[in-house]
Amino acid sequence: MTAIAAMMTELGTRARAAARLLARTPAPAKDGALRAAARALRAAAAEIKAANAEDMADGEAKGLGKAMLDRLMLNDARIEAMAKGLEDIASLPDPVGRVLAAWERPNGLKISRVSVPLGVIGIIYESRPNVTADAAGLCLKSGNAAILRGGSESFRSASAIMAALRRGLESAGLPADAVQMVATRDRAAVGAMLTATDYIDVIVPRGGRSLIERVIAESRIPLFQHLEGICHTYVDKEADLEMAKSVVRNAKLRRTGICGATETLLIDRACAATHLAPLVTMLLDEGCEVRGDDAVQAVDRRVRPATEEDWRTEYLDAIISARLVDGVEGAVDHINTYGSHHTEAIVTADPDAARTFLDGCDSAICLWNASTQFADGGEFGMGAEIGISTGKLHARGPVGVEQLCTFKYVVQGSGQVRPG
Amino acid sequence: MTAIAAMMTELGTRARAAARLLARTPAPAKDGALRAAARALRAAAAEIKAANAEDMADGEAKGLGKAMLDRLMLNDARIEAMAKGLEDIASLPDPVGRVLAAWERPNGLKISRVSVPLGVIGIIYESRPNVTADAAGLCLKSGNAAILRGGSESFRSASAIMAALRRGLESAGLPADAVQMVATRDRAAVGAMLTATDYIDVIVPRGGRSLIERVIAESRIPLFQHLEGICHTYVDKEADLEMAKSVVRNAKLRRTGICGATETLLIDRACAATHLAPLVTMLLDEGCEVRGDDAVQAVDRRVRPATEEDWRTEYLDAIISARLVDGVEGAVDHINTYGSHHTEAIVTADPDAARTFLDGCDSAICLWNASTQFADGGEFGMGAEIGISTGKLHARGPVGVEQLCTFKYVVQGSGQVRPG
Repeated sequence: MTAIAAMMTELGTRARAAARLLARTPAPAKDGALRAAARALRAAAAEIKAANAEDMADGEAKGLGKAMLDRLMLNDARIEAMAKGLEDIASLPDPVGRVLAAWERPNGLKISRVSVPLGVIGIIYESRPNVTADAAGLCLKSGNAAILRGGSESFRSASAIMAALRRGLESAGLPADAVQMVATRDRAAVGAMLTATDYIDVIVPRGGRSLIERVIAESRIPLFQHLEGICHTYVDKEADLEMAKSVVRNAKLRRTGICGATETLLIDRACAATHLAPLVTMLLDEGCEVRGDDAVQAVDRRVRPATEEDWRTEYLDAIISARLVDGVEGAVDHINTYGSHHTEAIVTADPDAARTFLDGCDSAICLWNASTQFADGGEFGMGAEIGISTGKLHARGPVGVEQLCTFKYVVQGSGQVRPG
Repeated sequence: MTAIAAMMTELGTRARAAARLLARTPAPAKDGALRAAARALRAAAAEIKAANAEDMADGEAKGLGKAMLDRLMLNDARIEAMAKGLEDIASLPDPVGRVLAAWERPNGLKISRVSVPLGVIGIIYESRPNVTADAAGLCLKSGNAAILRGGSESFRSASAIMAALRRGLESAGLPADAVQMVATRDRAAVGAMLTATDYIDVIVPRGGRSLIERVIAESRIPLFQHLEGICHTYVDKEADLEMAKSVVRNAKLRRTGICGATETLLIDRACAATHLAPLVTMLLDEGCEVRGDDAVQAVDRRVRPATEEDWRTEYLDAIISARLVDGVEGAVDHINTYGSHHTEAIVTADPDAARTFLDGCDSAICLWNASTQFADGGEFGMGAEIGISTGKLHARGPVGVEQLCTFKYVVQGSGQVRPG
């Protein structure tokens, strides 16, 4: 057995033991431990900042980009935000032990479906060290043990955060092994995690496309995957123009770097004469690059031609692709052909068109007269999220503490045996 | 592209198109098509029996075992049972379009979680030709297109059943491509299905251990997997002896070949003096082989010694392993160490012991004072099942039409944009 494999077995064995204990830990004990972890994070601020300074120095020496360095950087405000995040998770309702359904059979068997933790969750992420605290907190709240593997650039920062979290859990009487970190920068450790089927129940990858693609290709463990968010806003012929402008502006430009940002604007050919130019001009005037089909290009010389590739591109930037479609059916066809099953919006006053759109789009979140930027666990009222799943199994859309649970059937009888 | 890959692309493209239509097909149309398929099966009885006779002749020539030949054989009663099964599925409630949850946000957004079909389901099975009709019916009811791949021994039988089903669907106005079969015996077709990530949303393997292991090893598509059912019955010191005898007899011997049959009997050391000998003697007298630890061997010279391997073995036969454990905690430890996360039962009059057992066993179905043979979708009131999942994600326990659905979030607004 290689050293990496031995380490994974050790981590996995400890995680399984902690998970068994966590599954039986009542909510007040879990919430107390989350609050203790928050206190421990605040108390360790100096040591976390010192570790982060070393990571930052290495990152600058290696020539990391400005955006990457900003994601890596920790200061008092960011450490406080992590601590507050843990306290917010503590105040969520307990997702474990809910009776999801209950019924009685004619033979008197009482059957209930009860939520229980998944077990051990593996999280593979990149440069943001704060994911360490957020992900650990969500797993703990849902009664799961967590094994985290962060990016090598943030290794010292994540290690310092992890040490503080574990001290917090222990001070509250929970096992420190409820949250563990893969203590090596060796990239082979990712491969070992992805094949640790005996020890990890689900893998949550958080990061850029190359990380996610590696995880999809190598994992033998089920994933909550989110490859990309190619989100659409469709403006129907029955759309109020002012509402359409407001929704499109927000959906594209409020924040361009989040997965719920609209990447493609679809406009009903039937309202091109009235709606197309105002929408395109508004976007251009707000500093958004527009890449359009012939009709969109005809609106303004600033519009660039869209290629086939544009319809498949998640820009995560102030760029939008735009085209006319033949009504709501044309919009649905475009979305199901080019989209990523994430989030789509229709603007219309026509309930029939809305129904066709909401039913027809094969996406996790379908909105009527609202911005795609609402694709977020917090905005859904689910509290914090560990990601947004574009897969269809188990978790779809925002993955919060409820989605980090599974269920079991509990059956109460009085000696029943099966006839026949 | 190889011929197999081209065929898979063709099947997949047709399935996707059919799935889009099925997702919008109202329940009465789906139910009418299921009933039409049942009529078409009955009408095709002669041609199905002729195809089956060729399969049987080949199977006998190849020297298939008696059990295998019995699974392969079709007669009028079995064809009628398939047709009746489709009619039963038609009369289940529609699993699509249910509002699973609905809430309103402070900003006025109305959010609902609505059940929708998964899309395209791939079923890989072995010798029983009736799976063709059962699986196709469950997929259709849940609005999914199905791609089926049966065993090579039953190829002609399954093809004849499939042809009848497709005629039935077409006669009711649904696309025949809602159910398709991989029209080759080439085993490479299984590999092509398991990597058809663009075309198949979930794979359901149904068969023996070697099939399931191949599917687990090769699939790039999520699975509803069921490797084996190593089910336990634990007799607690507070168990009524007569109830324990009745439950254990049924759990082991009602049918020994089903996945919910008990394979290991655990007896509380604290009631060994009163409960052990009557239970073991009863099993031996009923013709069941017993493999036990030292205490169990001491009961009767017919008991054979159990090895470590016995605790991990799914006999699917009139054989049981048996041992003493230290109370309910010992039982839970044994089950979580050796079990397969399928189904476990406790017999006890003590609610605290029951609670510890039901909470502690990490299994899909946990029963109190009832036989493990109730692990069945029909017995749960879910109608027919496509299998029993021992995985934890999405489907756990019996997989019926509800579990063949996913959900989407539908959000209704009035022009809301996200602040900040």
